[in-house]
Amino acid sequence: MRTLKTTPKQDGFYMPAEFLPRKQDFLIWPERQDTWPNGGKVAQKVLVEVAKEIIKHEALTVFCSADQYENARARLPEEVRVVEMTIDDAWAQDKGPFYVINDEGEMRGVTWGWNAYGGLEGGLYFPWKRDQEFATKLLDLENYDRYNLSDKMVFEGGAMQIDGEGTLIVTENSVLNHNRNPHLTKEEVENYFKEYMGLEKVIWLKDGMAFDETDGHIDDVCFFVRPGEIVLSWTDDETNPQYPNLKAAYDTLKDATDAKGRKLIIHKIPIPPVLHITPEQAEGVDISESAAPRDPNMPLAVTYINSYFVNGGLLVPMYDCPEDEIAINMFKEIMPEREIIRIYTKEWSMCGGNIHCMALQQPDPEAIAALKKNK
Amino acid sequence: MRTLKTTPKQDGFYMPAEFLPRKQDFLIWPERQDTWPNGGKVAQKVLVEVAKEIIKHEALTVFCSADQYENARARLPEEVRVVEMTIDDAWAQDKGPFYVINDEGEMRGVTWGWNAYGGLEGGLYFPWKRDQEFATKLLDLENYDRYNLSDKMVFEGGAMQIDGEGTLIVTENSVLNHNRNPHLTKEEVENYFKEYMGLEKVIWLKDGMAFDETDGHIDDVCFFVRPGEIVLSWTDDETNPQYPNLKAAYDTLKDATDAKGRKLIIHKIPIPPVLHITPEQAEGVDISESAAPRDPNMPLAVTYINSYFVNGGLLVPMYDCPEDEIAINMFKEIMPEREIIRIYTKEWSMCGGNIHCMALQQPDPEAIAALKKNK
Repeated sequence: MRTLKTTPKQDGFYMPAEFLPRKQDFLIWPERQDTWPNGGKVAQKVLVEVAKEIIKHEALTVFCSADQYENARARLPEEVRVVEMTIDDAWAQDKGPFYVINDEGEMRGVTWGWNAYGGLEGGLYFPWKRDQEFATKLLDLENYDRYNLSDKMVFEGGAMQIDGEGTLIVTENSVLNHNRNPHLTKEEVENYFKEYMGLEKVIWLKDGMAFDETDGHIDDVCFFVRPGEIVLSWTDDETNPQYPNLKAAYDTLKDATDAKGRKLIIHKIPIPPVLHITPEQAEGVDISESAAPRDPNMPLAVTYINSYFVNGGLLVPMYDCPEDEIAINMFKEIMPEREIIRIYTKEWSMCGGNIHCMALQQPDPEAIAALKKNK
Repeated sequence: MRTLKTTPKQDGFYMPAEFLPRKQDFLIWPERQDTWPNGGKVAQKVLVEVAKEIIKHEALTVFCSADQYENARARLPEEVRVVEMTIDDAWAQDKGPFYVINDEGEMRGVTWGWNAYGGLEGGLYFPWKRDQEFATKLLDLENYDRYNLSDKMVFEGGAMQIDGEGTLIVTENSVLNHNRNPHLTKEEVENYFKEYMGLEKVIWLKDGMAFDETDGHIDDVCFFVRPGEIVLSWTDDETNPQYPNLKAAYDTLKDATDAKGRKLIIHKIPIPPVLHITPEQAEGVDISESAAPRDPNMPLAVTYINSYFVNGGLLVPMYDCPEDEIAINMFKEIMPEREIIRIYTKEWSMCGGNIHCMALQQPDPEAIAALKKNK
């Protein structure tokens, strides 16, 4: 793995959209006992079921500790690759490398700084050294060269949504927050985005959803289903605590134009009712000064927008409520070309995130280059 | 990674010789503080130098613990792939999978039982669970299917030498020893060899070299330079403590025929003088009930036979003695088609083994199938 001194933009590399073809996915076995209830056993069962669905579409690697290798290997289908890696917690999307590709079908990685969602100012656990190493170790493992920003700027995979045609949507609260990048101006941040993700236009929202432990990741707010078209978390209930932020997001997005000068088509997807961790689950979390406590009174940010693309499909988290059907039917209408697949990941959402936070995609640069050529 | 219920022989797979083309090599970062002097720092420096040589010939992966990843990554050339894996100690050849290939250029792995060179009856450390998992985890990591003998028979990579044309040389003391396979007869062991390595003929020596902590691995005694031709550790000094075992080995080998009915050509390579760990090195080893103590009075088995093939070359360990030149010159004459390369691995030999024990080869099945077709 070479560490390059140039930037992706200089080298003709850019970050492709998540709805484009992918080569494989990565998941991390949830096993941290001070963040996952009851040794993570229910969360692990959920992961096994999600894994069975993903391998119908593409290859999957699951990372776990040395101590959990035997157990994870035995419980996962043999088509899944299981690889030991020490990681501080299981949210792969946020700490993974950003893959950038070029039109010749080549791929490299970008590694960012990491501080567990805010470091000592409200971050979720301590220390976070293994998380910080994750992106580098993953690129090393798979022999991809990297551009390294780990000492330059803190940024998380769940904090960005791109259309692959030059447009990025982010929230100020998760990027410009004092607990992430107090040393950088908005302009400097935009410059990193443009140089290292190959972008031209940044659309800034003020904040993400309320109750989001990540300080408002965009991946609970909206995602691109194709260039120029997004789905957005929504509620018509003005008394819903999520209303103010989502209304503000909508107002910004409806007036925005993308890198190509297009207005965005916006589909509003109703959010499910607020969720809480149960007292029994909270009781099953280890008491530790190294991780934020789990409080059954603390509401959690939940949304269907934390869905996850696979080749030919979309994995949509279910919350056992009437809104499930509305979301499924809307996604089917908006993406008739995709299989819309229900996954039962409520246990994960009780711990602060869902499938888009847990899984990490690796694009298929050759397939994407071929698509682009045939356009 | 599928676990197959058939045998390699049934499926048309066999184990290729070590002198044939290879795809990559594996090394394990020496870091166990109760077996390597002074935190393994000198042994690690030696590994970095060996790595620089290996990558001139083929790809190399180095495994290390999570704690040593940052250090190993920074010290190794960027062409080397560094991958986290928890392993009990660093002798990769012995605990690695045996790779088997077929004539279509496909490859699979065989995993054997492991008990750290003798388990609770004279084994070198305890526990050995991570070592036992190593071969499986390596195949899983690289997506090769496996034949699993881990609950059937204990066997180590350094305990065998093959010609790739049906012949195996092993020592009784390292295989039939009560501390390895007390439950198996010689016939049953031979049957495993034949079915899982694709062999027809087993040549049994009584024992390996004296002072060998492994109970007499064959990789200190002889290796095939090509089918029908071996190099053998040797001394003409009848008072040398190595003489009796080497004379017995020679007598057996000179009368043996291989799987093709050929007599073996035998080249005798003089051994260097006996080696001891220095008192300073021994003092730098952690005191622990989990590992055999290091005693400066304990003589060590040393030989040039513990050399290691790379594509186009042979890495030969140097011991800073006049015998170094004799060995180098003899190898040059015997293998004029290869570059004979000196490596300075005395620090490793002080700890019980050398380059052939430390490194693990992965054959290149497509190159070998092509060679076979063009014959």
